[in-house]
Amino acid sequence: MDYEKFFTERLDALKRVGDYRVFAELERCAGDFPRARRHVGDAVEDVTVWCSNDYMGMGQHPEVLYAMQEAIAQHGAGAGGTRNISGTNHLHVLLERELADLHGKEAALIFTSGYVANMTALATLASRLPGCIVYSDALNHNSMIEGLRHSRAEKRIFKHNDPADLDRLLAADDPERPKLVMFESVYSMDGDVAPLDALLTVCESHGAFSYLDEVHAVGMYGARGGGIAERDGVMDRVGVIQGTLAKGFGVIGGYVAASAATVDFIRSFGNGFIFTTALPPAIAAGALTSVRIIKNEPGLRARHQERAATLKAKLRAAGLPVMPSESHVVPVLVGDPVACRRASDLLMERHAIYVQPINYPTVPHGTERLRLTPTPYHTDAQMDRLIEGLLDVWRLLDLSAAA
Amino acid sequence: MDYEKFFTERLDALKRVGDYRVFAELERCAGDFPRARRHVGDAVEDVTVWCSNDYMGMGQHPEVLYAMQEAIAQHGAGAGGTRNISGTNHLHVLLERELADLHGKEAALIFTSGYVANMTALATLASRLPGCIVYSDALNHNSMIEGLRHSRAEKRIFKHNDPADLDRLLAADDPERPKLVMFESVYSMDGDVAPLDALLTVCESHGAFSYLDEVHAVGMYGARGGGIAERDGVMDRVGVIQGTLAKGFGVIGGYVAASAATVDFIRSFGNGFIFTTALPPAIAAGALTSVRIIKNEPGLRARHQERAATLKAKLRAAGLPVMPSESHVVPVLVGDPVACRRASDLLMERHAIYVQPINYPTVPHGTERLRLTPTPYHTDAQMDRLIEGLLDVWRLLDLSAAA
Ligand SMILES: Cc1ncc(COP(=O)(O)O)c(C=O)c1O
Ligand SMILES: Cc1ncc(COP(=O)(O)O)c(C=O)c1O
Repeated sequence: MDYEKFFTERLDALKRVGDYRVFAELERCAGDFPRARRHVGDAVEDVTVWCSNDYMGMGQHPEVLYAMQEAIAQHGAGAGGTRNISGTNHLHVLLERELADLHGKEAALIFTSGYVANMTALATLASRLPGCIVYSDALNHNSMIEGLRHSRAEKRIFKHNDPADLDRLLAADDPERPKLVMFESVYSMDGDVAPLDALLTVCESHGAFSYLDEVHAVGMYGARGGGIAERDGVMDRVGVIQGTLAKGFGVIGGYVAASAATVDFIRSFGNGFIFTTALPPAIAAGALTSVRIIKNEPGLRARHQERAATLKAKLRAAGLPVMPSESHVVPVLVGDPVACRRASDLLMERHAIYVQPINYPTVPHGTERLRLTPTPYHTDAQMDRLIEGLLDVWRLLDLSAAA
Repeated sequence: MDYEKFFTERLDALKRVGDYRVFAELERCAGDFPRARRHVGDAVEDVTVWCSNDYMGMGQHPEVLYAMQEAIAQHGAGAGGTRNISGTNHLHVLLERELADLHGKEAALIFTSGYVANMTALATLASRLPGCIVYSDALNHNSMIEGLRHSRAEKRIFKHNDPADLDRLLAADDPERPKLVMFESVYSMDGDVAPLDALLTVCESHGAFSYLDEVHAVGMYGARGGGIAERDGVMDRVGVIQGTLAKGFGVIGGYVAASAATVDFIRSFGNGFIFTTALPPAIAAGALTSVRIIKNEPGLRARHQERAATLKAKLRAAGLPVMPSESHVVPVLVGDPVACRRASDLLMERHAIYVQPINYPTVPHGTERLRLTPTPYHTDAQMDRLIEGLLDVWRLLDLSAAA
């Protein structure tokens, strides 16, 4: 077989249907967020970023940066080993305690990413609970789907955010078999929020173990930033709460928080945890500082929500097709993959505004969109310039105003 | 089902057979490597680390630390998004170019870890090459095995480092089907080295695509630290060279280097690459600096090899059972899981020396060992103290001198 030819043909096919991805090459500027510099060949230009998942701007918080620099000076660059073989640092242990406390759980365990946390924890639980059946929300993130796939457990897909459908599926299965139900709180492409209380009630009535991905909620919802489960007062009813350190907390890494036995089980049997180098001490220090700040900054969360509400109102007032969203995620509908990429390109070229187009397979065909993520640091003036830019592009491409 | 009870029982079973893991809680000290501080409850004590995979001590190199601190000051803590959605930083691009150059390949792609690099690249290649058969060395690392498992491709296991066995297996299969052969260069638990030229000749004669994990070799072998494939002059014959930024280079992250089409294929279809937050700019900056230094420091590699040879000679002279190893990895045989853990504990308690016991499933039953990793920074005096400690423990536990 000609491997080169095969790879090239598959890439050409992607290009033909418009799904080939070109990455924007940025330089983030601490202290100037959400501004950044963009490299195009040898040229460099200033842009305003409207699609970062550094939702709270914690990735440039001076105390976070200072904690990281200090940890580098004291402990060096990397962890030097897996958690078991010389790689466990005191800062890892402190961070795990802090995260357990954030979610009101007995224990927590950190991973190199939120992706690896989901993949490893779900593969471990679903493959090792004997005869386990997994119930998965139809719109779950790829990292959860891959964890389930890796486990080879039997699966059922329930309708997105639909407790009645979940109830129906659970009721149809053998009550004796272990059951794991997995869902997210904030779905990041639409910005809708799961009915946690109702979903958990269904889980409880069938003796199912619940696994909740709060990746797009931690740091941003709840009195201390514990997520939607904290906001809704249901943290103690969730089997595993999973989160990331890379979005609301602005650094990198992922984690699970749960009972001591659950966490110890994942720690002891999770291959994606065991066989990999631990996070650098400086990453743990940065995340630890970020979590501590966020816990005590309800004002930042209030400002974040205010900014999102203001942006939605401004977009609506300008007649732009903002899609319904209950959260800080603000999607604007384009509805066509080529137009969506073109709109993104024009915003960049004509207005120095960077919003990545979101196309299939990340969202369904026909719902292609620009996904805006206002942070506490996006100003009114930046919003007004964004809307000017969008109106210009909507006119140029003759796009619809209907969401 | 009572999930808590199930988890607890499984953990109790681990404890009964002696396979339950307790992590040593360290504080690495930049500038004082391989010394570290160890936390036990509230107490803190000084130890000498003899089992770090920061093989070259690059995790404390002043230029690496400076580059990371500078990048934090300029670009902040995290990348702020996936590579596709606002997360690609100029430093990622520079690092990928540097790694491609290191391995003499057209392109390279970085991942959050070496684990994720293997898992993602192998799952992507093996699942998407139609009808692919995968040939896997019997001692391959878990990250490669999980990638293969995830792909659900058909598999054959060939005898460890045995080109004749590989040849036999390849010859038995349909010549028309795509074939992927995966192996490592330095096997990290025994320190033996694969016969790359012979293995590649077999791959070529059957039109198989070769995938080489150089995780325990990059930075340490070859004129510029390109690994065993560089040392043996066969880099251009390997389909994918995979490596880590966490061991020889001292930071965190993983990568693949290959032809432009191969790398673009993995970039475009690899879920573990696409759906996760990119590495922080500071991590890329640290790794970039480390790779550049290492490329131009053959003296560090020479010193590393000299230290390993000296340690092996000293162990042999002292009558300690050092196992045969062709590399910088120095395993000392204990041959029993309980004695192995006990030896490790006694070294720590009585001699302030930290070497993690290596037990099943990381190595086969009956080959339990202490795995020593001398770095360029371990002194003769530290080696002599280590040997004193080992002799003391060997006496106390009445261990054998036969390797
Ligand atoms: C719902 C969800 N879970 C998990 C992840 C993975 O988290 P991380 O970026 O920390 O790998 C993401 C996105 O990146 C996500 O959207
Ligand atoms: C052979 C091999 N490949 C891959 C890995 C994973 O690399 P990383 O620690 O960067 O995840 C390891 C060990 O950690 C390894 O020993």
